[in-house]
Amino acid sequence: MSRALARSAPVPEPVVVVGTGMVGSSVGCALTEAGFQVHLEDAVPTHAQVAASLGAGTAAPADPAAVGLVVVAVPPRAISAVVADALSRFPAAAVTDVGSVKSRPLAELQQRVDDVSRYVGSHPMAGSHVAGPTAADPFLFLDRTWVVCEHPTADPAAVAAVEALVRACRARLVRMDPVEHDAAVAHVSHLPHLVSSLVAGVLRDLPADHLALAGQGVRDVTRVAAGDPRLWEQIVGMNAEVISVELGALQTRLDALREALGDGPAALTDWLEQGRAGTRRIPGKHGGAHTEWARMVVEIPDAPNALGRLFTDIGDAGLNVEDITIEHDPTRRVGYLSLDVEADTRDTLAALLTDAGWSVEAAGR
Amino acid sequence: MSRALARSAPVPEPVVVVGTGMVGSSVGCALTEAGFQVHLEDAVPTHAQVAASLGAGTAAPADPAAVGLVVVAVPPRAISAVVADALSRFPAAAVTDVGSVKSRPLAELQQRVDDVSRYVGSHPMAGSHVAGPTAADPFLFLDRTWVVCEHPTADPAAVAAVEALVRACRARLVRMDPVEHDAAVAHVSHLPHLVSSLVAGVLRDLPADHLALAGQGVRDVTRVAAGDPRLWEQIVGMNAEVISVELGALQTRLDALREALGDGPAALTDWLEQGRAGTRRIPGKHGGAHTEWARMVVEIPDAPNALGRLFTDIGDAGLNVEDITIEHDPTRRVGYLSLDVEADTRDTLAALLTDAGWSVEAAGR
Repeated sequence: MSRALARSAPVPEPVVVVGTGMVGSSVGCALTEAGFQVHLEDAVPTHAQVAASLGAGTAAPADPAAVGLVVVAVPPRAISAVVADALSRFPAAAVTDVGSVKSRPLAELQQRVDDVSRYVGSHPMAGSHVAGPTAADPFLFLDRTWVVCEHPTADPAAVAAVEALVRACRARLVRMDPVEHDAAVAHVSHLPHLVSSLVAGVLRDLPADHLALAGQGVRDVTRVAAGDPRLWEQIVGMNAEVISVELGALQTRLDALREALGDGPAALTDWLEQGRAGTRRIPGKHGGAHTEWARMVVEIPDAPNALGRLFTDIGDAGLNVEDITIEHDPTRRVGYLSLDVEADTRDTLAALLTDAGWSVEAAGR
Repeated sequence: MSRALARSAPVPEPVVVVGTGMVGSSVGCALTEAGFQVHLEDAVPTHAQVAASLGAGTAAPADPAAVGLVVVAVPPRAISAVVADALSRFPAAAVTDVGSVKSRPLAELQQRVDDVSRYVGSHPMAGSHVAGPTAADPFLFLDRTWVVCEHPTADPAAVAAVEALVRACRARLVRMDPVEHDAAVAHVSHLPHLVSSLVAGVLRDLPADHLALAGQGVRDVTRVAAGDPRLWEQIVGMNAEVISVELGALQTRLDALREALGDGPAALTDWLEQGRAGTRRIPGKHGGAHTEWARMVVEIPDAPNALGRLFTDIGDAGLNVEDITIEHDPTRRVGYLSLDVEADTRDTLAALLTDAGWSVEAAGR
């Protein structure tokens, strides 16, 4: 515990991570990097060994009586059984999980064991598109939200242990009741995923020449639908009650669209305006207020190290850049780089880059 | 016409561009850059002057009898009236428009004028999120799809003139029947837009602490819903018949989801698998076959010109990079850069960058 953060309680060690997929391995790496002792377990022992070789901890077993914290990082449907097993095997440990749904696993656990006080569920909002221990990243949780879901019978020491874990992984701690958490992720994660899959499924039977007209919009809307159906089935299935209610709200809004299509321009504009209003309520990426981003496009000439020079000039300007997209194949003669920058800094950056000899277009967005 | 492309018929000049918003101004810039004479008109004359000052052509009127091609770049509902006016004012010209819907404007035009043979509609698939003449870009259409929608009574010379326009703007020419075009864009553009707005509208009434959990998924899904409701009302409204049918297909798939939620894991997995199958049918960005992209994450240390050096090293590798995303604020001590590269080149690039001293993680995707 050489480098425990001054401002918070230490993580009670040794820590056991059960399940060394991407998230579990990343927890192991983050804790190891922070100086804590981590033991790794996996149903597939070679996964634990791979994670260990990447700096996530040791694959050797821990002394069960000494273990202070267990992090269960297994698929949603397996959580309650693995947590129950951990509570039994590690009698002095606080136990958490990192699953995307919190109420149902807690209810299942309450069916399995009498005393759930040492269990406090949690949910780091990071990395769902990545799989396997080889994707382990000690910085995966840096500046990401990590929700801790205390329940009424939770032991304060267990809550403190899980909050220490969140801080040691340098995530942003958010406290939320399990029911509230599941409602929130239904809205901001599960429902968008299902809607993405809804429209993606309609693409299956299209003629190829229709699909050839696909632009950035449909790519953005359907991106998450490419996620693993077996994982998402578990997430959606574990939160099915909440999602059913939300699908009702979606149905109401879909009915309103069909009505608006018949009612004419004003009704349809109003319906679309509601959607735009919704997008404006999404806060900035790192939890701050909604940031207005503005796009600028820079021409990348066919010259040695053009991208390198461009990023040097952007770095010199010291401004916040959100997303960077290469619009054309950079191996071609001329490419274009789109930069999303904070709206009120765009003109400054555009002027600096123009002065430095770049061809810049500020695009409305 | 100093630089007309050798492989194609020249654009019949002078050209008149009616409507100097972003798309019209960009057409003017592309044609001017290719050596053609362009006259600019706008209902707001200062817009035409701004476009002229940016190299889109001249705001001086053309000799009506001499005009060879008119490009109508006005909002969808205004198209048929402006095209009818152009056919009457410029008796020798081919006339095209650049609107997102093709059947209804043609039908409206046939109500307005007896002979529509000099009109051939078209649709460049570029730049809908940008507005105003100041966003004019001579390269807007470079390598983008531009659909030309010949109708049965079209004059071959008018078709040739519009196809010459597409080539002069260096877009990729696609020929499609107007009805077919409208079905295609309903699927790959209008329906995804409406679905994005569908889920975005549901976000309006959420508590702020629910929205604080928003991740990249909901941002991707709802991005296009931030588009201008007045423009999208016109696009959707002009294609309402096709969209109504497609909303029926969407409804069927939504009903199937609600049933699958009750039927259990296998049914839900199958439903999600249909969505993933749909995403795999979207071709590569530039019209080629679907490309499998793989993600890698590079740590950007706090060192002078780190991004610049990184892009130099990437450039030296000469590989195709699709998207670049800065995961964290680059002004912080350590940042991360996500690179989407062709799946089969990822390991090569990762090895080259590792050899060059970068900390690289290949992430499953």
